Amino acid sequence: MSRVAVMGTGSWGTTFAMVLADSGAKVTMWGRRAEVCAEIAEEHRNPQYLPGLELPATITANPDPAVALEGADIVVLAVPSQTLRTNLSAWKPFIGSSAVTVSLMKGVEKGTLRRMSEVIGEVLEIGPERNTVVSGPNLATEIAARQPTATVVACTDHNTAELVAAACSAPYFRPYTNHDVIGVELSGAVKNVIALAVGMVEGMGLGDNSKASIITRGLAEITRLGVSLGAEPATFAGLAGMGDLVATCASPLSRNRTFGVHLGQGMSVDETVAITNQTAEGVKSAGAILGLAKAHGVDMPIAEAVTGVVSGELPLSELAQSLLSRRRKSEFA
Amino acid sequence: MSRVAVMGTGSWGTTFAMVLADSGAKVTMWGRRAEVCAEIAEEHRNPQYLPGLELPATITANPDPAVALEGADIVVLAVPSQTLRTNLSAWKPFIGSSAVTVSLMKGVEKGTLRRMSEVIGEVLEIGPERNTVVSGPNLATEIAARQPTATVVACTDHNTAELVAAACSAPYFRPYTNHDVIGVELSGAVKNVIALAVGMVEGMGLGDNSKASIITRGLAEITRLGVSLGAEPATFAGLAGMGDLVATCASPLSRNRTFGVHLGQGMSVDETVAITNQTAEGVKSAGAILGLAKAHGVDMPIAEAVTGVVSGELPLSELAQSLLSRRRKSEFA
Repeated sequence: MSRVAVMGTGSWGTTFAMVLADSGAKVTMWGRRAEVCAEIAEEHRNPQYLPGLELPATITANPDPAVALEGADIVVLAVPSQTLRTNLSAWKPFIGSSAVTVSLMKGVEKGTLRRMSEVIGEVLEIGPERNTVVSGPNLATEIAARQPTATVVACTDHNTAELVAAACSAPYFRPYTNHDVIGVELSGAVKNVIALAVGMVEGMGLGDNSKASIITRGLAEITRLGVSLGAEPATFAGLAGMGDLVATCASPLSRNRTFGVHLGQGMSVDETVAITNQTAEGVKSAGAILGLAKAHGVDMPIAEAVTGVVSGELPLSELAQSLLSRRRKSEFA
Repeated sequence: MSRVAVMGTGSWGTTFAMVLADSGAKVTMWGRRAEVCAEIAEEHRNPQYLPGLELPATITANPDPAVALEGADIVVLAVPSQTLRTNLSAWKPFIGSSAVTVSLMKGVEKGTLRRMSEVIGEVLEIGPERNTVVSGPNLATEIAARQPTATVVACTDHNTAELVAAACSAPYFRPYTNHDVIGVELSGAVKNVIALAVGMVEGMGLGDNSKASIITRGLAEITRLGVSLGAEPATFAGLAGMGDLVATCASPLSRNRTFGVHLGQGMSVDETVAITNQTAEGVKSAGAILGLAKAHGVDMPIAEAVTGVVSGELPLSELAQSLLSRRRKSEFA
C-alpha cells in the first residue's frame, strides 16, 4: 500500500487525494491553513473548494509539512505554480531519498520559463525516473462526483509511471501511462491560455463554430511548441492534449474559460479577479508560455492575442479579428 | 460572377445559398416542394428550417430542376444522402458539361458504402477535378446569423477549389482549400456518429470529462479509418476534422447530438424520431460507416457502440462501459 503525501488543499489536490484514498493508498494532506487541515482530517470535508463533498475518512491532513511528508513513497505537488520553488525548497529536507513526485500543477514558472516537473527536478535534485506528471480531461468537480474519467501518468521511466498509476486506479478513474513528460505537461499548461481565448470569444457573443476553430488552432499551436521542445505529436492528439483542452474549453466549470468570458464581456483583469476571487492560471502563465515560444521561434498567435488582451495592449475590438483571421488560404500551406 | 444552382432547401443548403449570394454569386435554389420555393423566391424566407432569417433578395428558387440547373457553373448538392443517387440521375441531363459540383452532404451511401462525392463522380461521370466537397465547423444557424467562421473547400484540383472558395467568400465566411477530399469528406460523415455517442453519454448524465474522452477517441477512430482509405492525417487535425467534430459535439444546435441525448435518456429510435421530427444523419450512416471500417479492417469501437444502441442490440446500461473502457494501459501502445 502506498503512503502518499498530497501537498496542497485546492480543488484538484483534494479530489486527487480522494482518488488515491479510494484506490487504497494511505493519504496525508498538507495545507497552509491549520483550520482547513482540521476540517479535512476531522470533518472529512473541504467546503471552500468542494462544497458538499464527503471525503474518505482515511485521509488525514496536517499543516506541518514535516508531518505530512514523513514516510511518503509518493509526494503529490498541488500548490500554485508560482509558489512551487519556494515551497519545495522548504520541504526538501523532509522528502525521502527514494520518494517519487507527482505534479498536478498546470503552469510555467515566470522568469525561468521552467515547466513544473523541471522545477521539481532542479530543487529536489532528482532524476527524471522519479519525477512524474498527471494530466488529462480531469475537471475536478466531476471526478469528485465520481463520474468516470481517464487520465495520463507521464514519466520517462515506465515502472515509476506504473507505480503512480497503480496508486490512483479508482473504479471511476483510469490512468494510462505515457513516457512523453514534456508533451503531457505542456498540454496542461497551455490549454489554460486557449481556454481563456475561448471564453473571450464566448463573452463577445460568438458561437460554437468560432470556439471550435479556436480550439482546433489552439491545439495546433500547443503541438508546434511541444514538438519544438522535444515532445511527441501523438501526445497532443491524446487524452492529456486534445482531451483536456476540449473538456476545459467546453465546461462551464473551467475557471480559465469563465475568466475569459468576463474579459470578453469587457471587464478588466482586476475587475474579473474581484468577481471571481482569483486570477486564472492561464492569466499568470500566458506571458511565460509566450516567452517559451519566442525563445524557440514558435508562432503562437492565440497565446499572443490572449497576452495582449490581458496586458491591455490589444483592444477587445481587435481580438476576434486577431483570433479568427489566418494569413494563408490553403489550410496547411 | 458565378451562376450557382443549390439543389436542396434544408437548413445547410439554404444557409450556404445565403453565403453564396452574400459573396456576389447569382443563386437559384431547387426544392421538391413548390410552396417552399415560392416562399424563398418571393418572400425571401425559409421558415421551416431557418425561422426569422431574411434571405438575400437576389436568391431565386424553382421546383423544376431543369430551370434551377440551367446555365449553372457551380452545382451545389444538399439533399439527404440516401436520396442523392436517384435525384442526381434525374438531374444529369440538365447539368452542364463543364459545371463544377459541390457536395454539402454528410453521409455514406448504404449498400455501396460510397462517399457522396464518389456517388456524384459515378452518376455524373465527371473526374475528380470538377468534384468538390465543402465541410468545416459550420453549424448552419450560426452562419445564418452571419457569425464569423471558416470552412474547407476540398478538391484534388487546386484551381477548382479556388473557384469554389472564391464563390463562397463572404465577410463572415472564410474558405480554405485542401486537396484531401477523402479526409475532408469522411470527417464530415463520421463526426455525426461520434456526436450521437457524445449525446448519449450526456443523456445518461455524464459530464465534460467523459464527453471530451469520447471526442478525443472519436477523432482517433475517424483518423484511423481515413488514413486506411488514403486520407492524410493532418486533415483530421484541421478545421474539417477536429474543428467540425468539436463544434458539432459542443452545440445544443446539433441534431445528431440532440438525437443522442434522447437515446441516452432511454428513448428508442422511433420515439426520438417522433419527438425530433427527423432521423439524425448519424443514425442513417452509422451502419454504412461501420461497414466501411470492417471492409478495411479498421477498429471503430465508438461507431460500433452507437450502431449497437441504435439497432437495440447493445443495452444502454452497457454503453458507458463500452465507450469509456480501453484495453491497454499505455495510452498509445
